[in-house]
Amino acid sequence: MNLQLTDDGRLRHLLTLDGLPRAIITQILDTAESFMDVGEREVKKVPLLRGKSIFNLFFEPSTRTRTTFEIAAKRLSADVVNLNIATSSQTKGEAILDTVDNLAAMHADMFVVRHSQSGAAHFIARHVAPHISVVNAGDGRHAHPTQGLLDMFTIRRYKGAFHNLTVAIVGDVLHSRVARSQIHALTTLGVPEVRVIGPKTLLPTGVEQMGVKVFHDMEAGLAGCDVVIMLRLQNERMRGALLPSAQEYFKFFGLTLEKLALAKPDAIVMHPGPMNRGVEIASEVADGPQSVILPQVTYGIAVRMAVMAMLAGGTA
Amino acid sequence: MNLQLTDDGRLRHLLTLDGLPRAIITQILDTAESFMDVGEREVKKVPLLRGKSIFNLFFEPSTRTRTTFEIAAKRLSADVVNLNIATSSQTKGEAILDTVDNLAAMHADMFVVRHSQSGAAHFIARHVAPHISVVNAGDGRHAHPTQGLLDMFTIRRYKGAFHNLTVAIVGDVLHSRVARSQIHALTTLGVPEVRVIGPKTLLPTGVEQMGVKVFHDMEAGLAGCDVVIMLRLQNERMRGALLPSAQEYFKFFGLTLEKLALAKPDAIVMHPGPMNRGVEIASEVADGPQSVILPQVTYGIAVRMAVMAMLAGGTA
Amino acid sequence: MNLQLTDDGRLRHLLTLDGLPRAIITQILDTAESFMDVGEREVKKVPLLRGKSIFNLFFEPSTRTRTTFEIAAKRLSADVVNLNIATSSQTKGEAILDTVDNLAAMHADMFVVRHSQSGAAHFIARHVAPHISVVNAGDGRHAHPTQGLLDMFTIRRYKGAFHNLTVAIVGDVLHSRVARSQIHALTTLGVPEVRVIGPKTLLPTGVEQMGVKVFHDMEAGLAGCDVVIMLRLQNERMRGALLPSAQEYFKFFGLTLEKLALAKPDAIVMHPGPMNRGVEIASEVADGPQSVILPQVTYGIAVRMAVMAMLAGGTA
Repeated sequence: MNLQLTDDGRLRHLLTLDGLPRAIITQILDTAESFMDVGEREVKKVPLLRGKSIFNLFFEPSTRTRTTFEIAAKRLSADVVNLNIATSSQTKGEAILDTVDNLAAMHADMFVVRHSQSGAAHFIARHVAPHISVVNAGDGRHAHPTQGLLDMFTIRRYKGAFHNLTVAIVGDVLHSRVARSQIHALTTLGVPEVRVIGPKTLLPTGVEQMGVKVFHDMEAGLAGCDVVIMLRLQNERMRGALLPSAQEYFKFFGLTLEKLALAKPDAIVMHPGPMNRGVEIASEVADGPQSVILPQVTYGIAVRMAVMAMLAGGTA
Repeated sequence: MNLQLTDDGRLRHLLTLDGLPRAIITQILDTAESFMDVGEREVKKVPLLRGKSIFNLFFEPSTRTRTTFEIAAKRLSADVVNLNIATSSQTKGEAILDTVDNLAAMHADMFVVRHSQSGAAHFIARHVAPHISVVNAGDGRHAHPTQGLLDMFTIRRYKGAFHNLTVAIVGDVLHSRVARSQIHALTTLGVPEVRVIGPKTLLPTGVEQMGVKVFHDMEAGLAGCDVVIMLRLQNERMRGALLPSAQEYFKFFGLTLEKLALAKPDAIVMHPGPMNRGVEIASEVADGPQSVILPQVTYGIAVRMAVMAMLAGGTA
Repeated sequence: MNLQLTDDGRLRHLLTLDGLPRAIITQILDTAESFMDVGEREVKKVPLLRGKSIFNLFFEPSTRTRTTFEIAAKRLSADVVNLNIATSSQTKGEAILDTVDNLAAMHADMFVVRHSQSGAAHFIARHVAPHISVVNAGDGRHAHPTQGLLDMFTIRRYKGAFHNLTVAIVGDVLHSRVARSQIHALTTLGVPEVRVIGPKTLLPTGVEQMGVKVFHDMEAGLAGCDVVIMLRLQNERMRGALLPSAQEYFKFFGLTLEKLALAKPDAIVMHPGPMNRGVEIASEVADGPQSVILPQVTYGIAVRMAVMAMLAGGTA
């Protein structure tokens, strides 16, 4: 049934947080916790994946995401090979599978896949041999599960538990693969109230069916929140008909100190990066005491190490 | 005399299979055999080239070929540096030698060279200091010796010996550096009958002088073969006057199940990749039981490890 | 005061040779001396920076410079991640700092920074956390300190001492970050006579205030020199109004055997590379017995290892 799990319920691939059991999510977060000290050591390395071959298979360029996986893999002592593969709109799935089969024949252990089309990582996962794992590093608008997991790790670190939280996700939910991953994870982990805040043009129709409350007024939506997750506004959205201008957007949906004051006093502010300062978030907030945006990056390495170790750590 | 061998007959560079003695080819294949299990291990690494500096010097981009050498070098524990060097038609050999001299001064141990011009790897090999080895990873239409060697390794694995085989090479022999390497190796290893099959426009004039039989009719050429090696048809060939269309080409020279049935029942099908399915080969054949196309890739890593180990493995 | 030094006078960043104390320069050269044998060993590696994360942060592409730092870091056993970051003229410093903060949050230990704008490495150094070091790998026209240091290392190796030398720097001093670094270092190390030689259009106004003698006539400038440092002439200079033609430039300021004969008989010839043969230097000189251009490259690895080891070598 679930492509992501083995028959006996262990993690087989990481493709999406949708349908990933709570126990597995918790196991990933716990494993990440155990890797938190590696980054602090004099020698930032553990030999867990020594001699494993991990391929960063990027059909869409993303220096930032590639770097986080490369660092995580190197801290686990794996051998990493980066492949930037240009695809055109005519590239058939067949060509992708031939590429994957070739790398598999080189005794690959793991593919970290980034692709502009939704479902690409699933497509590859459905195809690979039993000993190879696939990690989705972002597929179109669909999912970006390691980002969702590091967000959960961040919330757990700062808030201790999930069962008593109100979490708001603010901005371009419509085009965000991050938002979908987050909503799935928050719901699974038992967050009682998840809110999405944004203009009608940037919220998916029927988003309420994912179990979230919808707000078009940011002030109302932020009231009483424990966690505020800001989404990046892609510049290209502002060129089209969806939005009037960056200034206008900031006025209504940019997170300022004033608006943040409506959330709980100990609310934390998160952002998946890279930020558009002055568009979706004010610099005073991004660099302020409630921001946990840089800790998110630190946790992201531990979470990716955890996922890679669970997938390729062998039978041990 | 022979740039590839030391005075006492050991491998000094790997530039072409033309003129490489049978004993050396056999030694490479035997060494590759000893590396075959490394890819199967929990820790896919041997410390043979630890602390050696290998430079992938790619004057022509090729992610695929670069990856195979990078993986092979990392499994030998070497340090690998990838250099993509853009060259223009005006780039003088002098500039290439200055680049090579610079890297040599950084105590390089090996250059893996890919260049669009025939003879580039020889040019560099003629120039480098005695402790540096050059591996030709493809130079123009001239040679691609590790591909030729992995093909021989594949044939030996599946057929056991060379002295009783009929081998057909099908397609664009004219523009193929792979085909030239294969013909040299097959002849040297004692294959009694090597055939080339293709339209007149894609076979070099005088190819018979390399000791091969020429067929323009694929059915006749395949009859009784033990090994069928398909060549990739570059898309740019079909735009020019050489070929009418991909469909037409497939009709006459594409390998289908029907045509393959004319070869021996246990004939194997090889292809250097990447394949143009439906142009030079039908998917039913590429993915069928007689295809050894993916094992070729696996063997390619072992063969490249063997070549690198023999070249830079030190005095041991 | 000095961004490059800790309160107790140890090296904190390497940004420029301007103001770097003589004792520190000498310490770097001495440390480099101790790394000189690593490149000659069977296993060219020391475990000094094992588990450290070094980021090559190249906002301006330079395969050559990136390679020297990558090799140096790998010989120290560090983990190296290469980032080529495209910047546009509108890229604000804010975006650079967000990138740097992100990498810092991944527990980076060192940034090797290349940028087309003067002051970029200083800007980053001023910003980073105490445990992170910055090495300037070239910023606009400003500085390229590891190049300057390897030049000093080269001079010391061949001439033994600095106090009795006459050193000439020839060519496009105006646009050269290398020349500025060299002049600072030579002066600091006590070279009694530093000369700059070039046409008026390629010497900065007021260069005399850096403590150098100015010559517009190459023959006069070379007379009696111990060391001749040639600068690269960027091709783009010749397209503009600054210079008539490459031939004309070579006639007046290209280093030929005839002109070199005016320097001391044991004078050495240096060049930071890549050379324009026939423009600033004749091939007979570049490849002649007085040329130490390739040894410079070899020393450059040892010097970069020394700088990296001093910066990230920990408290030991």
